[in-house]
Amino acid sequence: MTRTSHDDAGALPRPYLLFLGDVTVPGYAKTAFGLRDWAPEACIGEWRLPGCTVGTGLPQCDPAQAVAAGARALVIGVATPAGRIPEAWLPSLVAALAAGLDLVSGMHTRLSDIPALREAAERFGRRLHDIRVPPRGLPVATGRKRSGRRLLTVGTDCALGKKYAALALAAAFRERGLDAHLRATGQTGILIAGQGIPMDAVVADFAAGAAELLSPDAADGHWDVIEGQGSLFHPAYAGVTLGLLHGSQPDVFVVCHAHGRTHMLGYEDYPMPSIEAVVEATLLLGRRTNPAIRCAGVSLNTGVLPASAAGEACESLARTLGLPVADPMRRDVTGFDRLVDACLD
Amino acid sequence: MTRTSHDDAGALPRPYLLFLGDVTVPGYAKTAFGLRDWAPEACIGEWRLPGCTVGTGLPQCDPAQAVAAGARALVIGVATPAGRIPEAWLPSLVAALAAGLDLVSGMHTRLSDIPALREAAERFGRRLHDIRVPPRGLPVATGRKRSGRRLLTVGTDCALGKKYAALALAAAFRERGLDAHLRATGQTGILIAGQGIPMDAVVADFAAGAAELLSPDAADGHWDVIEGQGSLFHPAYAGVTLGLLHGSQPDVFVVCHAHGRTHMLGYEDYPMPSIEAVVEATLLLGRRTNPAIRCAGVSLNTGVLPASAAGEACESLARTLGLPVADPMRRDVTGFDRLVDACLD
Repeated sequence: MTRTSHDDAGALPRPYLLFLGDVTVPGYAKTAFGLRDWAPEACIGEWRLPGCTVGTGLPQCDPAQAVAAGARALVIGVATPAGRIPEAWLPSLVAALAAGLDLVSGMHTRLSDIPALREAAERFGRRLHDIRVPPRGLPVATGRKRSGRRLLTVGTDCALGKKYAALALAAAFRERGLDAHLRATGQTGILIAGQGIPMDAVVADFAAGAAELLSPDAADGHWDVIEGQGSLFHPAYAGVTLGLLHGSQPDVFVVCHAHGRTHMLGYEDYPMPSIEAVVEATLLLGRRTNPAIRCAGVSLNTGVLPASAAGEACESLARTLGLPVADPMRRDVTGFDRLVDACLD
Repeated sequence: MTRTSHDDAGALPRPYLLFLGDVTVPGYAKTAFGLRDWAPEACIGEWRLPGCTVGTGLPQCDPAQAVAAGARALVIGVATPAGRIPEAWLPSLVAALAAGLDLVSGMHTRLSDIPALREAAERFGRRLHDIRVPPRGLPVATGRKRSGRRLLTVGTDCALGKKYAALALAAAFRERGLDAHLRATGQTGILIAGQGIPMDAVVADFAAGAAELLSPDAADGHWDVIEGQGSLFHPAYAGVTLGLLHGSQPDVFVVCHAHGRTHMLGYEDYPMPSIEAVVEATLLLGRRTNPAIRCAGVSLNTGVLPASAAGEACESLARTLGLPVADPMRRDVTGFDRLVDACLD
């Protein structure tokens, strides 16, 4: 049985065996690292092929051992540069299917487009989960206000911590006893949460509709913490950002920014927008579907600074903006609790 | 030979025979009317089946007569409510292929998904053009500033005259001796222009990239007049609007609005945004890819008013906004020339 989206059955089969292939560059294994850090209860172990020099620190096991330990799916934990699945991995992936594991992948190449995997899945009664494929039959957004509460992380740019901030905030909300869900919109987030919608693959007319589907009506005290995408000021992806903003109807948003970044990643002619401009545009446009939208503060990625300088960077920015600023990777020194307070205020 | 997009060969084969099927409701034939009004040189005649009670006034001819008169394709000029191609039309469509015509359709159902048409196209060496399918391999937007000049029509809502305004402005520019192209983004516009990209079918990540492709580098004096989509304040489609705005990099925009419309079409909980709010948001976001963007004025659809009241409605709004306002359907009484002047200023 093959499966080209994860809509019909809701959640992905867990726990996972993390497949690292023959990767030698740690940066390419960030899906595996993200799962280890954010969904440890979903990770049985890792499986490395000969030549692999990267490890997650999880127990090493092969598919049969993983199945014995309760694993239900092998997750490709490596992102290759072109998003392709190397030929050399196919025997291992077939072996995983034979051992009783489903396969889960966020690569551009679809598992279900590889005949050897399709046939093996059929033969062994397993499923192929291509999580970069959005659900079929997505609706056009209705604009109807939904119950429950929502937080969206928005960014000044791509790749500066919107997923991490959403994960940290959802975890902090739960630590305070609140009922909170992460709503994932990108492939790593979907693997961590076990479900979600890959917003970058949705047809533009249905982007806001997909976002509505992602965070359905909920109880009054329930929080959906929604992983943001792109930036309203990104020359390529702003449309995705706006569709997600409108469909999410956030009550609260947190602006994510990277200290020291001066230009948009990969767009050297584009200076970063100011945080103030992002707040203003998000309020202006976000009010359309939730007139009560407000900015709770800023999640500042201080990764370029030594830990000793992170607190001052956050405080300085907080004084300028008049908003709480914290780095969720450096919670104690940057006052992450104050940002959480402001979100729940 | 079948074809599921119109990217590879650029333009659609023209002139057209307009197929009206057995339609009895004039509103459903608006694609045929749009072609008759805006691309008369591309229309050889119309073909009606028994029971059809709607006519375009063009000469009636069957496929063989149309081919003899130079037609190269039959265009489905009727939009059925669900976008489906009725069974009863198939023998006629096959006959058109047999007579030597390609088929062109903007329906949701793809011609190439209908086996009888696919086989007939193969047998007779004709092509099936499904214009609602975007080109393959669309790029992510680069944000690079392109040469030439661009105008984009933007809206307070859907379905109030953005295509009509763009057609009228492109025609007016040409009447003044300028080199101007309509850049179509919806199915009827694509049929009229003979090419374009159906923005509503593009995957969200590539929306701005598609818009960049749509209006490529051009000579200094050249104008691309780009058909707008949706509205930045539309709860479902704003993401498409923003992707199109960023990728189009317009020097000039014209806001399209319908006099008397109080709520968004089909969204009764959503009051119309003010024209001022649309101008403000378009400037704020549009400056990102073209810092020189400016609003030239308003194209006001006065269809709900008697002709005698249209001039006063435009003048009154112009006084409020301090911008030229005209109805391109009522050019003389509403001062359309002043709006054209302001675009070219």
